[in-house]
Amino acid sequence: MSYLCWGDEPSLDPIRPKPIVLRLMTVPASNNALMEDIVGLCKRRGFIFASSEIYGGYNGFYDYGPLGVELRNNIKQAWWRDFVHRRDDIEGLDSSIIMHPKIWKASGHVDGFSDPMVDCRESKKRYRADQLFFAPVILDGENQGYVAFMEGTDTTTIIKRAKKVRDGLDKKQSALDEAALGSDHTEFTEASETQRAQTLGPDASAVGTLTAPREFKLMFETKVGPLADDSAVAYLRPETAQGIFANYKNIVDTGRVKIPFGIAQIGKAFRNEITPRNFIFRSREFEQMEIEYFIAPEADWKALHRDWLDTCIDWLVSIGLPRGSITEDIHPTEKLAFYSQATTDLMFHFPHGEQELWGIACRSDYDLKQHQQHSGKSMEFFDEASKSKYVPHVIEPSLGVDRTLLAVLTAAYTEDEKPNDKGQLEKRTLLRFSPRVAPYKAAIFPLLKNKPELVEVADKLHKKLQRRWNVFYDASGAIGRRYRRQDEIGTPFGITIDFDTIEKDGTVTLRDRDTCEQRRVTEAELIDFLEEQIEG
Amino acid sequence: MSYLCWGDEPSLDPIRPKPIVLRLMTVPASNNALMEDIVGLCKRRGFIFASSEIYGGYNGFYDYGPLGVELRNNIKQAWWRDFVHRRDDIEGLDSSIIMHPKIWKASGHVDGFSDPMVDCRESKKRYRADQLFFAPVILDGENQGYVAFMEGTDTTTIIKRAKKVRDGLDKKQSALDEAALGSDHTEFTEASETQRAQTLGPDASAVGTLTAPREFKLMFETKVGPLADDSAVAYLRPETAQGIFANYKNIVDTGRVKIPFGIAQIGKAFRNEITPRNFIFRSREFEQMEIEYFIAPEADWKALHRDWLDTCIDWLVSIGLPRGSITEDIHPTEKLAFYSQATTDLMFHFPHGEQELWGIACRSDYDLKQHQQHSGKSMEFFDEASKSKYVPHVIEPSLGVDRTLLAVLTAAYTEDEKPNDKGQLEKRTLLRFSPRVAPYKAAIFPLLKNKPELVEVADKLHKKLQRRWNVFYDASGAIGRRYRRQDEIGTPFGITIDFDTIEKDGTVTLRDRDTCEQRRVTEAELIDFLEEQIEG
Repeated sequence: MSYLCWGDEPSLDPIRPKPIVLRLMTVPASNNALMEDIVGLCKRRGFIFASSEIYGGYNGFYDYGPLGVELRNNIKQAWWRDFVHRRDDIEGLDSSIIMHPKIWKASGHVDGFSDPMVDCRESKKRYRADQLFFAPVILDGENQGYVAFMEGTDTTTIIKRAKKVRDGLDKKQSALDEAALGSDHTEFTEASETQRAQTLGPDASAVGTLTAPREFKLMFETKVGPLADDSAVAYLRPETAQGIFANYKNIVDTGRVKIPFGIAQIGKAFRNEITPRNFIFRSREFEQMEIEYFIAPEADWKALHRDWLDTCIDWLVSIGLPRGSITEDIHPTEKLAFYSQATTDLMFHFPHGEQELWGIACRSDYDLKQHQQHSGKSMEFFDEASKSKYVPHVIEPSLGVDRTLLAVLTAAYTEDEKPNDKGQLEKRTLLRFSPRVAPYKAAIFPLLKNKPELVEVADKLHKKLQRRWNVFYDASGAIGRRYRRQDEIGTPFGITIDFDTIEKDGTVTLRDRDTCEQRRVTEAELIDFLEEQIEG
Repeated sequence: MSYLCWGDEPSLDPIRPKPIVLRLMTVPASNNALMEDIVGLCKRRGFIFASSEIYGGYNGFYDYGPLGVELRNNIKQAWWRDFVHRRDDIEGLDSSIIMHPKIWKASGHVDGFSDPMVDCRESKKRYRADQLFFAPVILDGENQGYVAFMEGTDTTTIIKRAKKVRDGLDKKQSALDEAALGSDHTEFTEASETQRAQTLGPDASAVGTLTAPREFKLMFETKVGPLADDSAVAYLRPETAQGIFANYKNIVDTGRVKIPFGIAQIGKAFRNEITPRNFIFRSREFEQMEIEYFIAPEADWKALHRDWLDTCIDWLVSIGLPRGSITEDIHPTEKLAFYSQATTDLMFHFPHGEQELWGIACRSDYDLKQHQQHSGKSMEFFDEASKSKYVPHVIEPSLGVDRTLLAVLTAAYTEDEKPNDKGQLEKRTLLRFSPRVAPYKAAIFPLLKNKPELVEVADKLHKKLQRRWNVFYDASGAIGRRYRRQDEIGTPFGITIDFDTIEKDGTVTLRDRDTCEQRRVTEAELIDFLEEQIEG
């Protein structure tokens, strides 16, 4: 999606735009406990680690462990399969992370890609100005100062901070207007110099320590080539989209594409976020799955935009997100960039609130025309069907791999109670991953480890399934415990080789992770079933 | 592989080490014509483009087009499937590109990862000192100066340059010792100050313009976080291996690994190469597929090293490299780093010569011990089997995705003559990709575009195969031309729906790309055949 919107928090109700001060109120309370459970499980079972953990971690960077990398790869491969392989109108691309710096000049990033930032002179902390709010401290009916706080701060904390302002004024006995604190927020970007001088910062002990917002560049800079002067400056791409625009002409010239067509790319992008937060939701190194879908200027973009929204929602459902958990946030016209026709974000209810997952933007011919102008190369497309030449318009569905992964984890995380081996109800943690994205597709268990005839059959089946899918083999411990270990990492199917398998009909027990129901199937039925569940 | 060796050119015969001056002679003449053909085909058919081409390109960076990204993904997925999914002793990982800078201090990269570089004061060109050689200009039996040239320069050019030295000395009539020029090379790193003053640089018009070699840092630097001071300095990883060592403890703590076990990772790495060259062989942004295989200190590492070499060779054969095209280059003991027990490179005959493809190094416990020391965290492993505690040793097979892709292209590129539709022999260009890595697995052709009954059957088969594999559909043009278009992009199988299909038995024509032989198969036979060829 457009870099101008990427960092935005959920925007307003499009039908009746409300003043910005109310925005904070529309964000549902975050579920910190759920986030902690997910983060804990991710670390405990090897999904996601803080980067460089042995060196104390590195803020804004994450490493994906053995299970996380499988989940991640499965999400990416499902996306690629559905949008590139299974469609005839979308081509794939893998452009470099470091590109010619002129690309970022043409795209507007060199000049415009920054966040307003506020420093605290006392605590040396730094805040994103658009996430910082301030509210009036009204004592005995009179405005006596302000208290600043980050978006999402609970009311109790805000009141506590306001009392600190009151104490500083030596007005300990004055009546504090708590209602005003709770409803009358303004973005700190709108604070006047006088207001700033009277404001208590989120981590300060006295008022007047916050600076005016200043622009902070979000692109990571480096130098390429043997020279270390300004001519060597280059950037880590902050989005994959520009790599697509830069290769549009190559693909038109070498392929046999017809309008409408798309170019899809999956790849890393980097942004020097001031306040990376909410686990992998906003990190400094992340991965995107972006499509630029080129259409004729006279095409019915509104209908195509709607088609894309539906396609994207269906895809999210196909990887396990409940349809009801996805909502649409239409950006109000007055907040769009001048060239933008429309942007709708698909929102998901993350543990930290309802937030943007997938932005689908109609960006007109702006990007191609910018590159046409800056490169001097024509971006015109000759349309065989209409015998006309034009610079295509574009619809841009832009999705983050890491955000998708967090959404999948959120939707999958479940705690329930199921009978254990002894028939007693026992608390259970499970990840209800769709078989499409589950790290392991199935686990194979010989009922008993010390029965060679069981182990032999299980081994053979394991080796056979392993040729095609990522499957797990576990021979140790009580079968109930083995099931639960797999439940916790989201393996959808358990396959047990027991005495019936070797003494009777060769069938195996197939256990469903979510219902814990078991049934007997032949090997041929098993493979058909797995194929349908995993690749359907 | 070790960063100390990665940039090395093929090293010496291990049995009888020869002086370095002879090294140049052992490099086979490069096949520029073949490289040009490959580069041309890659651009023409959308495999690989120069990055940022519309802005004049960006030296050392490449973009992979629609076919290139498929080939690339297939190579990576085949590697992952064989080394992670199909083995029980290797875990996957995906660590971040930007990691804590202390990691690069511990690994030695901050202090030691640099190349010696020589500048030409006249031409302003810069050369890697270890790729620059100089030879004596002997006139009438007397040494009168030197001529410097890059590795791989042909003898005619060297002689021409030596004559330039002679001309500058006003000795146009003197007899030049051409034999000495052709055999008596020395690395420029060994030139004395006096010799440098008498040397003609490769792009200079007068002698004495080359500087002494100076160290040039190869890691790309950037700054992370809101502060722009030295505390913010971070690096783009120059190898993926350190991300594995940094996560070793996480994986030991969260998994159920037993020694020996490996951790595998695929990911981008970056090196500010002074002279990126030979297409995608040496670029500034590249991708690695690395394994760290942890073994007990007392294990028979020599036998395990041999096993890994055999495994790696088999794998290269499985993706289409002829076994005979792979040779082994054993690094001589005296050239190894002090901690290294052995390194053998698997060499491949690229168009530009026989060069390193896959380095397999025995690195002892050096890396883990470095991180143990710098992080203060214990890297000891408790071995259940032997009831002992130790820091494991490691075997490191390290392979570049881009180099592998270039090797696959080189092995696949073929020109032959085959009869066309009219039975006349016609020149043909084809890529003999293994079905495992071919971008498209098959192409489906209705014999005639204007026969709805053919098109309908072809469409249906196309949609069915597309559910599972990346396949191409082409209805336009003479069937012979359609075959050849697919030959050129390496599609192994052509499937034609003709009148026999709809009028007789439903069988289709299956054409083999390499032999052009055709046979009729039923749909069930077709799917079994494709499955075996692609996923076997």
